[in-house]
Amino acid sequence: MGPADTLPVSAGTTSRGAEPDGGADESALTALSELLADDMQACNQAILARMDSPVALIPQLAAHLIAAGGKRLRPLLTLASARLCGYPATPSRDGRTTRHINLAACVEFIHTATLLHDDVVDESQLRRGLASANAVFGNKASVLVGDFLFARSFQLMTEDGSLPVMAILSKASATIAEGEVLQMATQNDLSTSMERYLEVIHGKTAALFAAACRVGAIVAERPDAEEQALDAYGTNLGMAFQLVDDALDYAADQRLLGKTVGDDFREGKITLPVLAAYGAGTEPDRVFWRRVIEDSAQEPDDLDHALDLIGSTAAIATTLQHAAAYAGRAQAALEIFPDSRIRRLLGDIAAYTVSRAR
Amino acid sequence: MGPADTLPVSAGTTSRGAEPDGGADESALTALSELLADDMQACNQAILARMDSPVALIPQLAAHLIAAGGKRLRPLLTLASARLCGYPATPSRDGRTTRHINLAACVEFIHTATLLHDDVVDESQLRRGLASANAVFGNKASVLVGDFLFARSFQLMTEDGSLPVMAILSKASATIAEGEVLQMATQNDLSTSMERYLEVIHGKTAALFAAACRVGAIVAERPDAEEQALDAYGTNLGMAFQLVDDALDYAADQRLLGKTVGDDFREGKITLPVLAAYGAGTEPDRVFWRRVIEDSAQEPDDLDHALDLIGSTAAIATTLQHAAAYAGRAQAALEIFPDSRIRRLLGDIAAYTVSRAR
Repeated sequence: MGPADTLPVSAGTTSRGAEPDGGADESALTALSELLADDMQACNQAILARMDSPVALIPQLAAHLIAAGGKRLRPLLTLASARLCGYPATPSRDGRTTRHINLAACVEFIHTATLLHDDVVDESQLRRGLASANAVFGNKASVLVGDFLFARSFQLMTEDGSLPVMAILSKASATIAEGEVLQMATQNDLSTSMERYLEVIHGKTAALFAAACRVGAIVAERPDAEEQALDAYGTNLGMAFQLVDDALDYAADQRLLGKTVGDDFREGKITLPVLAAYGAGTEPDRVFWRRVIEDSAQEPDDLDHALDLIGSTAAIATTLQHAAAYAGRAQAALEIFPDSRIRRLLGDIAAYTVSRAR
Repeated sequence: MGPADTLPVSAGTTSRGAEPDGGADESALTALSELLADDMQACNQAILARMDSPVALIPQLAAHLIAAGGKRLRPLLTLASARLCGYPATPSRDGRTTRHINLAACVEFIHTATLLHDDVVDESQLRRGLASANAVFGNKASVLVGDFLFARSFQLMTEDGSLPVMAILSKASATIAEGEVLQMATQNDLSTSMERYLEVIHGKTAALFAAACRVGAIVAERPDAEEQALDAYGTNLGMAFQLVDDALDYAADQRLLGKTVGDDFREGKITLPVLAAYGAGTEPDRVFWRRVIEDSAQEPDDLDHALDLIGSTAAIATTLQHAAAYAGRAQAALEIFPDSRIRRLLGDIAAYTVSRAR
């Protein structure tokens, strides 16, 4: 899958993970959204207002992704981080109290631009007949509207006027692109190392989570230690999030629930479940993996066989263990802050990120 | 064609345009490059240094477009505008004298990102078997490396630290995207108005020319009137430049010289030569234009017929008249500045922009 974006607000699970600690059900996410409902609504309004353009196709296409009402996880992290840091209860030096709203919208624009660009497909993929969200509008429209949102995000940052915020968000944007290019370079390559894989998911997902959180500390004018703590929380949450997303792409029971499984498989994307199953496989298994992933020579029943192989190894468990370790680190990073409802909810979200896959 | 990028440094023409005034041969461009050779070299070094990334594919692909040694017209405009405004001879408030170098590199990154994204093709185009520069690397790589350069351009702006510069360049980036989307929306539509066409070329080309020039006045800390004069120069030069580029895409004698002609035709792009020929055409001509442009039903000999139709009407002359008017306005905008070699060369470049097509 692309940058992970599959955290359900109202899934049916109530399972609790053994570790990391915390109330690991989806109610944390709902509770946080409710606690920050006014901010979230203001952010939604900012998003709708700022994605407008006299060129009608832009709001039309952007609405397809944005206005349709995503979960807005990343802006929620910016808003929650700002509140955790006491913004705007602590009067800001310049008296403005809506900086977090506009920067949350900015973060969502960067995310949406990457989603649109992630949808762009190559000739080879077209030939394999892959469906894609861009099927509705085409490659070119996805690219150009993504560019518009990306440029608009920089306009929002410029209006905010904080050089540290701009430095963080523009660096995150470059890191996302690097992560996506690296992912493309590792595609179909089963010799990809674990380290390289982690670099990819850091770039494509964790970097923006980290920036989204860190920005919250900056608008509240908190000390560097708190900025860094929120950066660490966001980074580790993002890593956990993407690992779980990658696990869910091979989760056979998700398939039974009618959810999409196998996107990564069809694209020959190198994720931890595949690396783990390949590493633990017999020689015939490895021959299979090389054919379907390295040679992109896939037959209709191959996904089922891949799911069987992944199910018969510890591939998913291994992936989720890594995710749980990152989630634990995300929770630990919050310890610098005094206990509060928001801090507990952010910790619970880290736990839920992992437990949703169990 | 995409954002116009075909101004040759050493073409063979020595023709002089009747209007606008000025030495209308390519020597103005060469002379300006030579006059600013140190700045241009520093800019090239900044470009090479800042397009680097630990992800090897990024400098590889960027080098394909950037390091191969383009004309760097846009960064040249930034450097020339800064010099015209006395930078850095007038000591800058903060003592730095290399701001124009980094901002020129920034402008080139924005331009290169748009070139890469302009290369992205749609399924329909692939089906028609169009060749494209992205054939070497694929759609996805073009998009992602473009994103990296775009993000890097914002990092360069952030390092420069001027909010007015950031506002101008981020707005220009949004305007480019709007122009490109509008161009896509008008594609294949022969009912596109002249006004709409001018809006497209303003967005896709003139906006960045204007920003590139304006930034030069800002780093030199010149009054608003000079900022606006350079903005007007850049806007009008960019309009002239794109109009000529659109004319050259139907210039039959260019074809004899072995240059590419007909890209716009094959893509069904709506440009002034087509609108003018369609407007002046007989009913059978119009039937032809509707088939090849609106229905994209093109046969091998259709380009030749289109060139004949354009040649038999005043389509090219009309296009070049508009270009000459914009070039004249570009020259007039410079009158606020005292006479100098740089001012004369900038004026000559405006004249040459048009005369190169004659």
